[in-house]
Amino acid sequence: MPAQRQLHLNLNFLNAGTHSAAWLWPDGDPAAFVDPAYYVKVARIAERGTFDAIFLADHPTFPDRSDFRPFQALEPTILLATIAAATEHIGLIATVSSTYNDPFNIARRFATLDQVSGGRAGINIVTTADRSAAFNFGLEQHVAHAQRYERAVEFADVLTALWDSWADDALVGDKTAPVFVDPARVRRIDHRGPHFAVRGPSTVPRSPQGRPLIVQAGGSDDGLELAARHAEAVFTAAHTLDRAKAYAEKLRARTASVGRPADAIRILPGLVTIIGGTEAEAKRREEELWDLAPLEQGVRWIAGLLQVDAARLTLDKPLPDDLTVPTDGMTTFAAEALAKGRRDNLTVRELIRSQGAGGTNHRTVVGSPEQIAETIETWFASGDIAGFNLMPDVLPSGLEAFVDHVVPILRRRGIFRAAYEGRTLRDHFGLPRAERRPASVSPVETPEGRKPELAASA
Amino acid sequence: MPAQRQLHLNLNFLNAGTHSAAWLWPDGDPAAFVDPAYYVKVARIAERGTFDAIFLADHPTFPDRSDFRPFQALEPTILLATIAAATEHIGLIATVSSTYNDPFNIARRFATLDQVSGGRAGINIVTTADRSAAFNFGLEQHVAHAQRYERAVEFADVLTALWDSWADDALVGDKTAPVFVDPARVRRIDHRGPHFAVRGPSTVPRSPQGRPLIVQAGGSDDGLELAARHAEAVFTAAHTLDRAKAYAEKLRARTASVGRPADAIRILPGLVTIIGGTEAEAKRREEELWDLAPLEQGVRWIAGLLQVDAARLTLDKPLPDDLTVPTDGMTTFAAEALAKGRRDNLTVRELIRSQGAGGTNHRTVVGSPEQIAETIETWFASGDIAGFNLMPDVLPSGLEAFVDHVVPILRRRGIFRAAYEGRTLRDHFGLPRAERRPASVSPVETPEGRKPELAASA
Repeated sequence: MPAQRQLHLNLNFLNAGTHSAAWLWPDGDPAAFVDPAYYVKVARIAERGTFDAIFLADHPTFPDRSDFRPFQALEPTILLATIAAATEHIGLIATVSSTYNDPFNIARRFATLDQVSGGRAGINIVTTADRSAAFNFGLEQHVAHAQRYERAVEFADVLTALWDSWADDALVGDKTAPVFVDPARVRRIDHRGPHFAVRGPSTVPRSPQGRPLIVQAGGSDDGLELAARHAEAVFTAAHTLDRAKAYAEKLRARTASVGRPADAIRILPGLVTIIGGTEAEAKRREEELWDLAPLEQGVRWIAGLLQVDAARLTLDKPLPDDLTVPTDGMTTFAAEALAKGRRDNLTVRELIRSQGAGGTNHRTVVGSPEQIAETIETWFASGDIAGFNLMPDVLPSGLEAFVDHVVPILRRRGIFRAAYEGRTLRDHFGLPRAERRPASVSPVETPEGRKPELAASA
Repeated sequence: MPAQRQLHLNLNFLNAGTHSAAWLWPDGDPAAFVDPAYYVKVARIAERGTFDAIFLADHPTFPDRSDFRPFQALEPTILLATIAAATEHIGLIATVSSTYNDPFNIARRFATLDQVSGGRAGINIVTTADRSAAFNFGLEQHVAHAQRYERAVEFADVLTALWDSWADDALVGDKTAPVFVDPARVRRIDHRGPHFAVRGPSTVPRSPQGRPLIVQAGGSDDGLELAARHAEAVFTAAHTLDRAKAYAEKLRARTASVGRPADAIRILPGLVTIIGGTEAEAKRREEELWDLAPLEQGVRWIAGLLQVDAARLTLDKPLPDDLTVPTDGMTTFAAEALAKGRRDNLTVRELIRSQGAGGTNHRTVVGSPEQIAETIETWFASGDIAGFNLMPDVLPSGLEAFVDHVVPILRRRGIFRAAYEGRTLRDHFGLPRAERRPASVSPVETPEGRKPELAASA
């Protein structure tokens, strides 16, 4: 009997949880926001549930919504290094803005995270939609969407080349010769593009995975291009299976068009869960969360997403007729929200509730463990998705409920691992170790201070 | 009886050790270079010795000397987060290039390291003398010394302002109000200078130390200015106590000239140790190390330092007469080496050996534990230095010898702690928690998407 196709689960680790009232939940402690023990505790629960990975978002700007809910304040790679030291198996994916970083620094940092974690690092490359981030990096205005994505593709080109700059056997460590590193097995990258000029090589020996896993999380056309060229997994948003299928089809076509296998990319839609022992208990939990959440904050969130004046939104009326999908910002989420509001003729209040518990825009399932497992299996059986980017309503309780009650069902059905089989994040995702690609650059003249062995032909 | 003045010790954690042959030492394992367990092991030995801190250098470029000795390959902050998770007390100082980083990202990363380590983070701000680093960051040529330091001072200005952007009590976490962060207690920094324009605020709540400790490590005139304005500790190089005194005097005058207390900065000269049970054993260990070290590599090192063609250097002759201190590169080290070679009329071979075991340019002491302790106490008793930046010949054995045999002597003499008394790096250095400085900027108009409470007057 052939082994059954296996589900992949990633925890989208959003501070206190996905629901905008998560931090107000009775067992929540606001001080956990800056406490490494909290992050370790949640990661260990996910590891107990044999999740493929945990994932941290990031926004390099102080958020307008700071007054009413937690946000990703701490720098994610430091947090993941902390978590790496306290876990053994779970993958560690951090978000990085390609708009506000240098690829040389990021290549080193993620290769180092891959080294210290024994091959568990992944990078989620984003272009940063937050308009205010520009002002923290010397820019007078927000960089346009297309330009950000052009830079992101080149950013990933440079990362990949730097991670490939060392051969697997370049760290010789021969004490009799003596030769520490063989410079002939390390090559410059000599990248020159519109956004970056990077000579390389990296300083970091080739890491356990060959290259950290590349993840992408935007569904715009530019985002698809970035994913098609570089991603090995995508986090996406889809409220219906049809939309997930349509996205998967587009992504497969685009991936094939750049010469990669159409199914090279693991697709993981977001899934917000509100779990109770029974459906009624789950619905009660949802109501209790809504009772805690000040609705005006949800209105501000929807207004920001759709780029409309909040004063034009009325809680018990549908969206204004003249709204269109904004051309910048979080365009995928905005399109999903607008489509859903129109399709189901929702009031603003209903739309806020339907939008992944009011703090996000992902599909939300409220129900018993059996119901959650059922919806997961149905989507998974379609063959279009590899699994889910799980977004529990409240952390850690919503994750504990999932791990203790939903995961066992998935395991019984034979679609989810009962124990980790491999050591690296690529192993978990069923991907081989990244092979070193041939140098794409031609040898160059030797600049001062650089030995000829380091020419790009190495 | 008043408490005796206390010594401070920082471990300069240079991969396999300071000696250029350290990695060739019989108990060394070249694979440890990328193994987190090795870094944790060494850090724990330093913590057992109640050191104030460990310190990691960094150079964002693949070194020319990669073939013959280890270098700082891994990104230091990720390594320190790994070490933080495995230690409880020891301070954690990482080097950052102000030339090749954005202060907004660095402020967040070090504040995060301070959060996850419970207040043990320090940042050593360097300007990166390596000429080849420029080519990894889109520059056509190396940035000149003065310009690098001007940027470094402004870099530290921005870090400080960002770390002060949150009041201690801004993270309210009041679940009944509900108010998560009080925006009125978080302020923008609105920095505009020749090198950076940064609006802020930081995303990270004020960290346990208030601000991570700022360290500086260059003795040029520009370096003194950076230290005087921003440093709380300096790592310096001095081969004689007279030179250390002269440096201390200059630094005190410069520090006072910018309005800080003259003795605000802890001065820690480098100290390379080669320790044996007796002086004879120590000398034998030194000889054994030199027998392992290919001398030609030392010649290349000296030639690079003094910016002279290696072919002009002869092992058994003094330095050529016409050499002068280079105006760029590692100018402090070069001046020290040249002065020493001239003063003692050393051959190139002798100079290589005298230069901190051939891989660096710090004062080297070869002897028994009593002798090492004696020289430490003599320098310390001068009152000009706060302690040492310890550079063991070989790691971990040279550090173990120091911790097991020198530290007990220092403790018996009452000049070094027997146990940590405080929790943070500032505690160890006898410094108070950093107080939030008043906003140095005037309120500005509110840009789009930003609430008025966030004006700089907060």
